[in-house]
Amino acid sequence: MSETTTNQSDKIFDCEQPTPLLDSIDTPAQLRKLSKKQLVQLCDELRRFIVKEVSVNPGHFASSMGAIELTVALHYVFDTPDDRIVWDVGHQAYPHKILTGRRHNFSENRKLNGLSGFPNPAESDYDTFTAGHASNSISAALGMAVASQLRGDNRHVVAVIGDAAIAGGLAFEGLNNAANTPNNLLIILNDNDMSIDRAQGSLNSYLAKLTASRGYNNLRHRAYSGLRRLRIISEKGRGALLRFNNSLKSFLTRQQNIFEGLNIRYFGPFNGHDVNRLIKVLNDIKRMQGPKILHLKTVKGYGYAPAVADPAIWHAPGRFDAATGQRISNQSKLKYQDVFGKTLTELARADKRIVSITAAMPTGTSVADMAREFPERTFDVGISEAHAVTFAGGLAKEGMKPFVAIYSSFLQRSFDSIIHDTAIASLPVVYCIDRAGLVGEDGPTHHGLFDLAYLSTVPSMQIAAPSSGQMLSDLMAIAAGNLSAPLAIRYPRGEADRLPEEMAYVAPSIGKAIPMLTPEKPDALIISIGNMLNPALKAAALLAEKGINPAVVDAVWLKPLDVDTLAALVGSSEIPVFTIEDGTVKGGLGSAVSSWLSTSGRHNRLTMIGIDDCFITQGSVEELRRLCGLDAESIADTVAKSLNKSAKE
Amino acid sequence: MSETTTNQSDKIFDCEQPTPLLDSIDTPAQLRKLSKKQLVQLCDELRRFIVKEVSVNPGHFASSMGAIELTVALHYVFDTPDDRIVWDVGHQAYPHKILTGRRHNFSENRKLNGLSGFPNPAESDYDTFTAGHASNSISAALGMAVASQLRGDNRHVVAVIGDAAIAGGLAFEGLNNAANTPNNLLIILNDNDMSIDRAQGSLNSYLAKLTASRGYNNLRHRAYSGLRRLRIISEKGRGALLRFNNSLKSFLTRQQNIFEGLNIRYFGPFNGHDVNRLIKVLNDIKRMQGPKILHLKTVKGYGYAPAVADPAIWHAPGRFDAATGQRISNQSKLKYQDVFGKTLTELARADKRIVSITAAMPTGTSVADMAREFPERTFDVGISEAHAVTFAGGLAKEGMKPFVAIYSSFLQRSFDSIIHDTAIASLPVVYCIDRAGLVGEDGPTHHGLFDLAYLSTVPSMQIAAPSSGQMLSDLMAIAAGNLSAPLAIRYPRGEADRLPEEMAYVAPSIGKAIPMLTPEKPDALIISIGNMLNPALKAAALLAEKGINPAVVDAVWLKPLDVDTLAALVGSSEIPVFTIEDGTVKGGLGSAVSSWLSTSGRHNRLTMIGIDDCFITQGSVEELRRLCGLDAESIADTVAKSLNKSAKE
Repeated sequence: MSETTTNQSDKIFDCEQPTPLLDSIDTPAQLRKLSKKQLVQLCDELRRFIVKEVSVNPGHFASSMGAIELTVALHYVFDTPDDRIVWDVGHQAYPHKILTGRRHNFSENRKLNGLSGFPNPAESDYDTFTAGHASNSISAALGMAVASQLRGDNRHVVAVIGDAAIAGGLAFEGLNNAANTPNNLLIILNDNDMSIDRAQGSLNSYLAKLTASRGYNNLRHRAYSGLRRLRIISEKGRGALLRFNNSLKSFLTRQQNIFEGLNIRYFGPFNGHDVNRLIKVLNDIKRMQGPKILHLKTVKGYGYAPAVADPAIWHAPGRFDAATGQRISNQSKLKYQDVFGKTLTELARADKRIVSITAAMPTGTSVADMAREFPERTFDVGISEAHAVTFAGGLAKEGMKPFVAIYSSFLQRSFDSIIHDTAIASLPVVYCIDRAGLVGEDGPTHHGLFDLAYLSTVPSMQIAAPSSGQMLSDLMAIAAGNLSAPLAIRYPRGEADRLPEEMAYVAPSIGKAIPMLTPEKPDALIISIGNMLNPALKAAALLAEKGINPAVVDAVWLKPLDVDTLAALVGSSEIPVFTIEDGTVKGGLGSAVSSWLSTSGRHNRLTMIGIDDCFITQGSVEELRRLCGLDAESIADTVAKSLNKSAKE
Repeated sequence: MSETTTNQSDKIFDCEQPTPLLDSIDTPAQLRKLSKKQLVQLCDELRRFIVKEVSVNPGHFASSMGAIELTVALHYVFDTPDDRIVWDVGHQAYPHKILTGRRHNFSENRKLNGLSGFPNPAESDYDTFTAGHASNSISAALGMAVASQLRGDNRHVVAVIGDAAIAGGLAFEGLNNAANTPNNLLIILNDNDMSIDRAQGSLNSYLAKLTASRGYNNLRHRAYSGLRRLRIISEKGRGALLRFNNSLKSFLTRQQNIFEGLNIRYFGPFNGHDVNRLIKVLNDIKRMQGPKILHLKTVKGYGYAPAVADPAIWHAPGRFDAATGQRISNQSKLKYQDVFGKTLTELARADKRIVSITAAMPTGTSVADMAREFPERTFDVGISEAHAVTFAGGLAKEGMKPFVAIYSSFLQRSFDSIIHDTAIASLPVVYCIDRAGLVGEDGPTHHGLFDLAYLSTVPSMQIAAPSSGQMLSDLMAIAAGNLSAPLAIRYPRGEADRLPEEMAYVAPSIGKAIPMLTPEKPDALIISIGNMLNPALKAAALLAEKGINPAVVDAVWLKPLDVDTLAALVGSSEIPVFTIEDGTVKGGLGSAVSSWLSTSGRHNRLTMIGIDDCFITQGSVEELRRLCGLDAESIADTVAKSLNKSAKE
């Protein structure tokens, strides 16, 4: 036991106690043998386990803490993995992972060769569907439920979706189609009144109102419990009673439920932290025919006071002292996000036409910085990336200058809006694409590897990537000018790059590449974009040690690509050319340079260094760069080998 | 007058009468001077005008016929173009175009250098936003309304959206955000209970129920009209009365309106064909603060009996005899869509795991063919392209073989679902991408020019395009096999291509290009994909007349690209290479071939023939091919010029 120290006044949690029940659970089948009392204890143990693990191995914390009882109840009531649980956004799925055979290697969560931080079908049969982007669970689970009907195997399918995710357009499309086809889908609305930041939108306040009608809730609870105690209702009658409760509600509030308007039977709200009550409710409704929704109220971070008090920060808190709740901050270096927030606010001060839009990530993107000073010009539209873009199109049409800040992989949701609602009419929307490139521990669903490629296909789109914090700021200033077409700036998560001290910073201008190293007779030309400049320069230094002297140019703009500068650097030589980008080479910088070379009849052999048409696993950014050949050593190696090869040819 | 013939029993409509009022309207300002009685006459005249014009110059018919009174009322009540009307899907916007200065050249509707068939901001100040893809109006109009608040110019902004379009995820995201920010947006729900085919989804049946409560409607109408007649309510009181009506409804139906659940005030449903009543209602609500929705019941094709009887066919009926309602059918040649529907049904007969999904286009895609025989395995999800794909992912995960048939430009909406919900987990969803390439008269919003490019960026995706109807059928058979990854087949609208009679058909296999012309010492290599094979072969014939003998290969697969076959055709020669695709060259076939050439160190100069990074206007497919250099003559010309040039070099 760890009771060696006396209680300190700042000690708020003890995760050092043993977890004997949890230690015995390797599959949900074992969990199903526990007693009611043991289930409560299991939840406590899970909570301690998660606090302990996540405090030393950072990950998503508060959502999973809020989903513990729900997870235990689901695996207790449903016959997983034959029954299917589809988690919407895997933030909440740590208890699920721990209970389904991955307790032993949970310390490898989000690490290279370890566990994915999200449900991952390649990792476990219990993980039924990819779950990195919000709002997809209802549609996916509906597909599974309909398949089950067609196959006649009668398995249960459950989608678990948060109140922020259910406001996404995809989730609504799923809801709107749920009742169209015979199926027994159960949708669990895990309602903690939170997105990562606060949930936005009218649906959210609607859900809050549903919950707030205390008079009704009390009455319903008493009716339900009383009748159950008196055994007035049989097993069969349970469903009827729940339906009765629903009618009662409708009668009392004179309000038809929004979900029932969509022909989905609604039950709730119930307390999502009473595991045995949840089990009862789930057993009550699991065999009812047709789609249904169970609304649970949960608390993000439940059971860990600091997380409950500030769930946005504790969404993914980094390392912390489990006993005291003190977060262990890293040395805080200047991040691209800091530059973005500061610059945006400054630009907004100077020009009242500047507005900004975020889709549920005010803190993550630093749009919150502008919101503090200009709340009326800052819009958080919730998990609604397509709306964010089309809304920006409307603002731009009326002369505003919208800066839309969205994470690269989530912006994929806006592809049609980008084309149809901004590019066709050449509206000057500024896309600030955060989390571009390799994002690290969040893995394949979150890497921003496709933006350069898919944006390149959009006519009238201008695309730039800064190679330093200073350049991000300068590109934003360009974007705040009088644009006549949409413009995208993509930059990574985390520490802002800085040029090596000996190199002079050159400010960007539209469509201009910036030569960084220009030996008189270069042995090769290295073209980098964005944050790949520093590895490229380091590679050049390593190559110089071997007597190889490449020219290095920062493309800055993928579109328009500065072919004049590139042509000047290559001259009439046949030196090999290398492109470096932290994105897919299919359609990105590599493709653009290739098109220039082969259509202009040049004979320079091209090597594309980047992501070669595959999905990339989780790991630290450094590890992943090595894996993809994007670190300085790998780049130098690739260049050297290629030169040796062509020397031999 | 045209009353020269006696009434024939089959004559159902007379559009030859004069249209003196309409002839006097060149701007909405003139319309605002008309009397009530004249407004009714104007609607009649508009109806005759549209019937007459569209009967000889085919276009979208039924939707516009249903929106005539609404359009007149909007331009009467609102001060357009200072006030903004945002049309959702321009099908319904012909009356709007005719009343806003485009009556004289309406005969050039949908023609090259004529009018766009949809609202187009580049064409008129009255066209406020691009309106080719459904469901974007609320978000765009909200952006405009919010901009108006920020600028303090107090203009009115009205979004007009159909009941099918409002079920799209983007529209829901817009609705969910409408009440978040101060604005006076008016949303008009033009509810004709129709998509192009029948509207799908629960929201639609919900809207029908709203309308069906006759008792309530009668009471409300009587209360409203009675009080108005008695002048009990003042101008100011109008709003209050409408709110009273709403409460009355809520009281009578014990149902809170779904829109009011989203904090949007709801008014309706009203008859959308009573122009003077519409004007009253619009005047009543136009100055109310906050977002509001006005629900109108309209009839698609209103005033033209055959269209009312079969609005799906009369959505875009082609030419017809205005007097009799007889459609003038073109010689019916076998279309790609016919091949698709027939093959899909045959495959579904042989394998009960095959399911098909359409997003509101059962007739357009011919998914309806399968639905007739296998309704339980055919899903029309309405205007919900992202859901269609994620739903297919769920079906595939459970061992079904989903064929998702979506038009190319609409599939852009599914980009993230394709990546996140099918490609990451390598789920074998089959994408049947209809209306790929140049679609003709529907213009820039509808051309399918980006699919090859954006799908190329998706890891694990296989992409093919058939060069004939037979090949489409054979590719579908391949897709019905046991795939281990998603597969896309893209094909155009309309007549299925056939090989020249002298050429033997070679059946496709995965990743194999098919050499079609292989002269011993070719002067050039032409690589075509899909329906560009025939123009390529014709170009080769034209070149042969000039003594130029190119090899021609049908790539069939963009991914994987058959570089072995291409390499064998090129050999070690430096013959120029030409790629031909009816899509953007940025990221498409041209880019893929370029990457192969430049990374393999070949010295063949490449010319990419395709869409060069721009949006393409409307016109016939033949005209547009010439415009883009994709017809046989242009291709031959490009090849010949390039060879002459390199001969000179």
